[in-house]
Amino acid sequence: MKDRLIYLPLGGAGEIGMNAYVYGYGVEGKERLIVIDLGVTFPDMDGAPGVDLIMADTAWLEANADRIEAIFITHAHEDHIGALAHLWPRLRKPVYARKFTGRLGQLKLEEAGIPPETINIVEPRPTTIEAGPFKVQFVPISHSIPESSAMVIDTPAGRIVHSGDFKLDGTPIVGEAFDPQMWHDIANEGDGIKVLACDSTNIFSPQAGRSEATLQAPLTEFIAEQKGMIVATTFASNVARLKTLAEAGKAAGRTVCLLGRAMKKMVSVAEETGVLLGMPGTVPAEEAVNVPRGNLMLIVTGSQGERRAASAQLSRGKYLGLEMKEGDTFLFSSKTIPGNERGVIRIMNAFSEMGVDVVDDRNGLYHVSGHANRPDLEAVHDLLKPKILIPMHGEHRHLREHAKIAMGKGIQSEVATNGTMLDITHDRPKVVEYIEVGRTYLDGNCLIGALDGVVRDRIRMALNGHVVVSIIIDEEDVPLGDAWVDMSGLAVKGRSRKPLAELVEDELAEFLERAPAKLVANDAKLEEGVRRVVRQLSMEEIGKKPEVSVIISRLAAE
Amino acid sequence: MKDRLIYLPLGGAGEIGMNAYVYGYGVEGKERLIVIDLGVTFPDMDGAPGVDLIMADTAWLEANADRIEAIFITHAHEDHIGALAHLWPRLRKPVYARKFTGRLGQLKLEEAGIPPETINIVEPRPTTIEAGPFKVQFVPISHSIPESSAMVIDTPAGRIVHSGDFKLDGTPIVGEAFDPQMWHDIANEGDGIKVLACDSTNIFSPQAGRSEATLQAPLTEFIAEQKGMIVATTFASNVARLKTLAEAGKAAGRTVCLLGRAMKKMVSVAEETGVLLGMPGTVPAEEAVNVPRGNLMLIVTGSQGERRAASAQLSRGKYLGLEMKEGDTFLFSSKTIPGNERGVIRIMNAFSEMGVDVVDDRNGLYHVSGHANRPDLEAVHDLLKPKILIPMHGEHRHLREHAKIAMGKGIQSEVATNGTMLDITHDRPKVVEYIEVGRTYLDGNCLIGALDGVVRDRIRMALNGHVVVSIIIDEEDVPLGDAWVDMSGLAVKGRSRKPLAELVEDELAEFLERAPAKLVANDAKLEEGVRRVVRQLSMEEIGKKPEVSVIISRLAAE
Repeated sequence: MKDRLIYLPLGGAGEIGMNAYVYGYGVEGKERLIVIDLGVTFPDMDGAPGVDLIMADTAWLEANADRIEAIFITHAHEDHIGALAHLWPRLRKPVYARKFTGRLGQLKLEEAGIPPETINIVEPRPTTIEAGPFKVQFVPISHSIPESSAMVIDTPAGRIVHSGDFKLDGTPIVGEAFDPQMWHDIANEGDGIKVLACDSTNIFSPQAGRSEATLQAPLTEFIAEQKGMIVATTFASNVARLKTLAEAGKAAGRTVCLLGRAMKKMVSVAEETGVLLGMPGTVPAEEAVNVPRGNLMLIVTGSQGERRAASAQLSRGKYLGLEMKEGDTFLFSSKTIPGNERGVIRIMNAFSEMGVDVVDDRNGLYHVSGHANRPDLEAVHDLLKPKILIPMHGEHRHLREHAKIAMGKGIQSEVATNGTMLDITHDRPKVVEYIEVGRTYLDGNCLIGALDGVVRDRIRMALNGHVVVSIIIDEEDVPLGDAWVDMSGLAVKGRSRKPLAELVEDELAEFLERAPAKLVANDAKLEEGVRRVVRQLSMEEIGKKPEVSVIISRLAAE
Repeated sequence: MKDRLIYLPLGGAGEIGMNAYVYGYGVEGKERLIVIDLGVTFPDMDGAPGVDLIMADTAWLEANADRIEAIFITHAHEDHIGALAHLWPRLRKPVYARKFTGRLGQLKLEEAGIPPETINIVEPRPTTIEAGPFKVQFVPISHSIPESSAMVIDTPAGRIVHSGDFKLDGTPIVGEAFDPQMWHDIANEGDGIKVLACDSTNIFSPQAGRSEATLQAPLTEFIAEQKGMIVATTFASNVARLKTLAEAGKAAGRTVCLLGRAMKKMVSVAEETGVLLGMPGTVPAEEAVNVPRGNLMLIVTGSQGERRAASAQLSRGKYLGLEMKEGDTFLFSSKTIPGNERGVIRIMNAFSEMGVDVVDDRNGLYHVSGHANRPDLEAVHDLLKPKILIPMHGEHRHLREHAKIAMGKGIQSEVATNGTMLDITHDRPKVVEYIEVGRTYLDGNCLIGALDGVVRDRIRMALNGHVVVSIIIDEEDVPLGDAWVDMSGLAVKGRSRKPLAELVEDELAEFLERAPAKLVANDAKLEEGVRRVVRQLSMEEIGKKPEVSVIISRLAAE
């Protein structure tokens, strides 16, 4: 049997979030594997109420754990690194990352009680990590977080470039600029690039992207114009933006204070690892409270309206002694990620009620994206000249559009969503297998499967309410007293204006009286009968069929 | 005591949706009242899981029902008319509306078993309805539904213009054009306009609005270019757009089929009431299935991604025998209302998986808004020259911005959100009272209050899961057997890898054994103790504190 090269996304392909990609090389079914990124996505009430984080399904990786050589983390965004501490105990393989990313990862591992040395901190290209049949280099590429990397992966079947998240930024303020010469070299070494697995996030943005540096002048001007306190929010990990904002505050004679744990951690790790230089000094909240508001600028977490972040706290009132007031300004130096609109609008209105002026990104004047737009992606195709393009990091519509564009240029391409294994040994990608993949939920401190039924039950209770019926059956299989009914999340009275719980109890009393002994003796049949009575009566009374749990307590003969 | 003129929004002020506004005139506390609009807003999982519709709180209106003269409906959008059939039984007052709006309202009343004659169909200005101290005219104004009306309300304290929803459209395709001359007359009759209560939806849109007619050429061109089946969606009530789309389809030689109950109802009532003329003929789904797909165009409901609408049905597979395939095109001739992004994106990706090309509004090329933008609103201020502007139909941020703009021009203004009663007798609006207002939920067939706790319990169960403990206490206040535990929406096993339900049962057995007789005899204390045990153990095991219901069954001494 011949060796083959495979690509298998477990997360991030068919969605934006929880990135996790696998490459394999070797004999079919015995390929040696590497994993790139282990990220999270954030749950919402519609899909996963009560869940803390969503991660890739690792069942396939666990079943093939002995084949995994290593895990590589491209950059420190949560959708690329956020699952590492949660899933690592299931895989227990060496992890590689660059300095800034690795340090942030080590902090996460430490919190989870995993030795931080699990992450090997490595230098970028030309440093090469050997992982089984793979020779892997971290290649600096510009993005909205310092030290983002593409992975150049040399295999016996050719060179893969796994882009990670990137934009073409020649002046990124913090971190490494996009370097066309280096990428030209990478494309022209040896046989060139066989496969480009490429970020598709902004494939529908028709204009070329703009550099982080273009924000300096407008932000500085805007901040200089404000009279009251200024509060600006952006993504905590956008260290370049934090620096630009802080410098603009300083230039306007303001004392700058960072609020929010994530943001302070980012700045401190960026300074510690040497990726952030010349950040203006900031003061803690305890000092900020004493600064006259016209001289103060807060830079806060919560650009997506997250309920516990600093922006939301301020929108609800005092936070660490600081408070927004009429005449203050709140600036979103960020864009709302689709799906987060409600939370962001909630904050905007809360500030409006306080008399605070809220300013958004003004169509890009105060924010630029971290991802390459369509013309930038096309420039990368042209620069790297891959034989195969695999679109990744996108919903299905992004992947499909990216593949269409590539094929329009004569590049082989295939849309492969999570669980789709591609054979990329030859010049055409070929779907060879579909792995069943779900999702893993972090729920409290448990990892549960998306299909375990736990979250399905929560959604059902939220939509339909929950009726619990408790029935006691004596030693002789005769109901002892009446059924007790407890209702949660249901209207108290319906059509007949009598309490529904009482009506149900009455109806169940009749049902139990009439029920044949054989039915009463059988848990499953009794449950089914009770459930039917409750649902039917509820439907008549309140127009809803609730979830019903039946607790049957059988008294043991003494 | 002198008479006064009051304004009281119960819905629509501080939110976009569930419009319900009250005007009153008379002695303080005895003002005679009119109600303008009774609309709904749509619930989501975050705020109101399981709820069918959200409407204004009518407690204040019910308490003052004897003072209400009449209810006026400005137009037939659900956020203005949707609550009428649900809330009318609580108010039982005459309703007035124009022909198209009234007919749609009558259909709703009929469905609810209310005599349709409850709605009085009236002609527009100069026809005047006398309602106590109010003389009310319906004045045609352009919007995205036929026959939208502003209300001109003459009172002893001066003239009020209640704008309803509107845009300045001179060529609206269907329905009446905006008529500057008529509005000039309205502004200059008698003492002119005292109060303008004005739509604020698009106050943040800086460009002048565009006419519905500007879409004809681009839509016709786009539809002519497509090869496969075309499916277009827009708001069902946008009859003008339906006509434009159908005409474009016809021009391209396509057979047109309308899919979705709401859309068919709108077209049929618009034709019946004479507001829609010259709509191209359409065929039912049963005929459409036999038309070659290249010659077929569907116009469907579900532009906001609603799960049960035709667009969502088609995104899941066959619907009424019709099915989308590779090479087909799906057009959103609509904009996504903030908060609906997830549902819309879900559909887009489902179509992408089928190989269908999805086209959105292309930044307004294929859709225009039904609301006046900022320059249009300013033009209306200038044309009507009100002494007082009350911003309505907007979230707080919209109302505040609109008030700021008015005040910048020397017009008196005040932000009054739901429940804020303004005295507008004199030249300055004055807040005179805050009425406590909540929301009314339609849940199944019940109307429940938002603060009744029903929905709160659902949300808590969805976030935390639900544990039910059943305990039987015998005639002598001694627990009979062990506690039974039922869990819904919780991880089965936690830290110690044993089933949580069993661990809880064991812990409760110990608790009950140790519990003093006095505690066991007291329902409230026993419940509290049980709840504490369950929550604490769950926290240790799975890292979550569930909702806990305790059913205590006390066996009666015989």
